[in-house]
Amino acid sequence: MPEAAPSDAILPKAPLTVAELSESQLLERIFPRLHYGQEHNPSLILGPGDDAAIVAVPDGRTVLSIDTQVADQDFRLEWSNGYRTTGYDVGWKAAAQNLSDINAMGARATSLVVSLTMPPDTRVAWVEDFADGLSAGIRELGAPDCAVAGGDLGRGRELAVSVAILGTLDGGSPVLRSGARAGDILALAGTVGRAAAGLALLESAVPVEALTRAQRALMDTQCRPLPPLAGGPLARDSGATAMMDISDGLVRDGHRMASASHAVLNLDASVLEQLAVPLLPAAELLGTDPMAWILGGGEDHGLLATFPPGLQLPRGFTAIGSVEAPAPTDSTGVKIAGRPADTVGWDHFAD
Amino acid sequence: MPEAAPSDAILPKAPLTVAELSESQLLERIFPRLHYGQEHNPSLILGPGDDAAIVAVPDGRTVLSIDTQVADQDFRLEWSNGYRTTGYDVGWKAAAQNLSDINAMGARATSLVVSLTMPPDTRVAWVEDFADGLSAGIRELGAPDCAVAGGDLGRGRELAVSVAILGTLDGGSPVLRSGARAGDILALAGTVGRAAAGLALLESAVPVEALTRAQRALMDTQCRPLPPLAGGPLARDSGATAMMDISDGLVRDGHRMASASHAVLNLDASVLEQLAVPLLPAAELLGTDPMAWILGGGEDHGLLATFPPGLQLPRGFTAIGSVEAPAPTDSTGVKIAGRPADTVGWDHFAD
Repeated sequence: MPEAAPSDAILPKAPLTVAELSESQLLERIFPRLHYGQEHNPSLILGPGDDAAIVAVPDGRTVLSIDTQVADQDFRLEWSNGYRTTGYDVGWKAAAQNLSDINAMGARATSLVVSLTMPPDTRVAWVEDFADGLSAGIRELGAPDCAVAGGDLGRGRELAVSVAILGTLDGGSPVLRSGARAGDILALAGTVGRAAAGLALLESAVPVEALTRAQRALMDTQCRPLPPLAGGPLARDSGATAMMDISDGLVRDGHRMASASHAVLNLDASVLEQLAVPLLPAAELLGTDPMAWILGGGEDHGLLATFPPGLQLPRGFTAIGSVEAPAPTDSTGVKIAGRPADTVGWDHFAD
Repeated sequence: MPEAAPSDAILPKAPLTVAELSESQLLERIFPRLHYGQEHNPSLILGPGDDAAIVAVPDGRTVLSIDTQVADQDFRLEWSNGYRTTGYDVGWKAAAQNLSDINAMGARATSLVVSLTMPPDTRVAWVEDFADGLSAGIRELGAPDCAVAGGDLGRGRELAVSVAILGTLDGGSPVLRSGARAGDILALAGTVGRAAAGLALLESAVPVEALTRAQRALMDTQCRPLPPLAGGPLARDSGATAMMDISDGLVRDGHRMASASHAVLNLDASVLEQLAVPLLPAAELLGTDPMAWILGGGEDHGLLATFPPGLQLPRGFTAIGSVEAPAPTDSTGVKIAGRPADTVGWDHFAD
C-alpha cells in the first residue's frame, strides 16, 4: 500500500520568520506588546506611526543617549554552556543599559525609540519576545514614565538593537563625572562583577544544567541586568558630586571619573573583598580570582558616585573608598589601598 | 650581493584600522570633526563625554525619531558599476534621512546622537570621513541648529549606523499624515525617483566612468540625498493639512497617508510625466521605464504634503494631484488619473 501523503495538519509547521511578513504586519504584532508606558503617559504626545514621535519635556531640557547591542559582539545567541539568549533577554538588556545611562545623570527616563536590525530568518516569535522583554525591563526596573515612542525595523546579516533614550532632570542639576573632589566619599549602588562572572559561566564548558541556583543568578545578571534605577535621582537629590554608571568595569570607568574630576579614586581593599563574596560560587567552579570580575567587569550597570564628606549616604549606596587629590607628580586615576590599579575592563576596539 | 632589507620608510604602510586604536583614541579623532553645531549652540547644554548629553527643549515638546542604515542592505560599500561608497556618503546620508523625518513633521532639528557599529578592519580614515560627511550633511542641507550631542562606538561584523534625532516645533503644531481632506491639493517638495534611478545605475554593469554628468548626478542623489529641509516648517506655517517624507516610494508612502487620512490621493498623470523627464538620461541608458522610479523609488526624501484648496503653495512645492473622498464601496489609496495605482516601493522584509 502506498504511503499516504502527510496532511498539512500533521506536518510540523516551520516557525514564521520576519521575511514572511511585511513591515506593517510585523509592526502590528509588536505594537500591542509595547503598549506599556503609552496609555495615560503624559510624556507621549504622539506615539508610533508617523514620521517621528513627539514627547513632552516639561522642564525645557532633555537628557539624551544612544546605545547599540550587536549579536556575537555584545551578546551571543548561543553560549558555550548551552544557554540560548532569548528575545526577552535582548529586549530587557536594551532597556536596562539605556535606562542606566539616564539614571547615571541623576535623571528619570521619559521615552525611548528602538531600532531593530534582523536577519530575514529571524523568527517572528523572537521579535515578539524581544518586545515583551523591552516592556518588562522598563516596567520591572522601575521606569514607569518611560514610553516606547517609536522605532525602526530593518534587515541586516546580524541582529542588532539600537535604543535612544530621553530623560528629565525634573528641574534639578545633572550629576556629571567631573564633580568629584578630594575628601569625598566614593560609593556604589547596585552590584559589580556579577555580570562578568555570569559571562564567564556562559563562556565556560560547564553545562547550564550543572549550575547551582546562585551560579545561574550570576548568569541572569549578564542576560538581564538590574541597574539600580531609583539610585540616580536619589543620589542627585542627596547632593552627589559626581556619578556615572559602571558599564566597562570599576577600574576603567573609575579612571574616566578620576580623569574628568582631576582626582584619584582610592578603593578600600577590604570592601572589594566583601563585594567579591557573592562571586565565589562561580569563581570556585571556574578556578578564577573573583577580584578580576570586581575590578574589570562591566554590565551590572551599578552606579559609581561621590558624596561630600560626612554626608549620610542615600539608601542603596555603600562606601567603597574615598576621593583624593593627586600628588603633585602623580596623575589622576584609580588606586586600591593607595597603590595604582591597572586599567582593566572592556574596550570595544583595543585587544 | 644580497638584497638589502627594505627600510620602514620604503615599505608601504598599511592603513590604520579601528582595531589599532582604543575607543577614546578613536573618539579623539572624531570629536573635532563633529564640532559643527556644538559651539555657540543654545540647544546643547552638555555635549559628548558623560553618560548622556543634555539638550535644551524650549517649547516643552521634542520631536523624536531613530533610523538605521546597514551596509549591503541600505547601501553597498562597492557597487556593480565600480563606485565605492565613501564614509562621507554614509555620514551625509545618515544626516539626510534623519533630518528628513524631523522636516516631515514640520519641525526643525535641534540635535542628534549617532551610534556607529564597525568591523575591526574598518579604516580610521573611513571613520573620519564619515564624521566629516555627517557634519557637512547637517550644515549644507540647512540644519544649522542641529548639534551632534553624543554617540556610541561599537564593533560588529557589518557596518551599521543608527542616528536618533530631536527637533522642535517652535510652538507650532505638527503636520501629521492623517490630516488630508477631500478637496485638498496634493503637492511635492524636492525630487522623487532620482535616488532610485541612481541606484539602478549603481547596480548596473555600465562603469561609472562611462556615465554622463546628468547620470552621475542621479547616482549622487542615491549616495548623498538632498531633502528639502526648508520645506517642512514652511509647509506647516502655510497651513499644510498632512505631510510625510517619501522614503519608500510615492505610491507606497502615499498609501500610508491615504490610509491615515481615510482619503484617496489622485495623482495627475501629466505631472508625473514631467517629473520623469530628469530621469530619462538613466532610463534610456538602462532601457527602463522611468515611471517605475517615480512611483516606486524612495530615498530622495522629498516631502509629500496636502494643502487646503485655493491656497497658494509655499515656495518649493508643486501640485501633483488632489485629495478625494473614497467612494462608498472603495478603499482608501492612491490613484493615477482616477485609476488605482499598484502598491510599489520598498518594504524591508516582504519580497
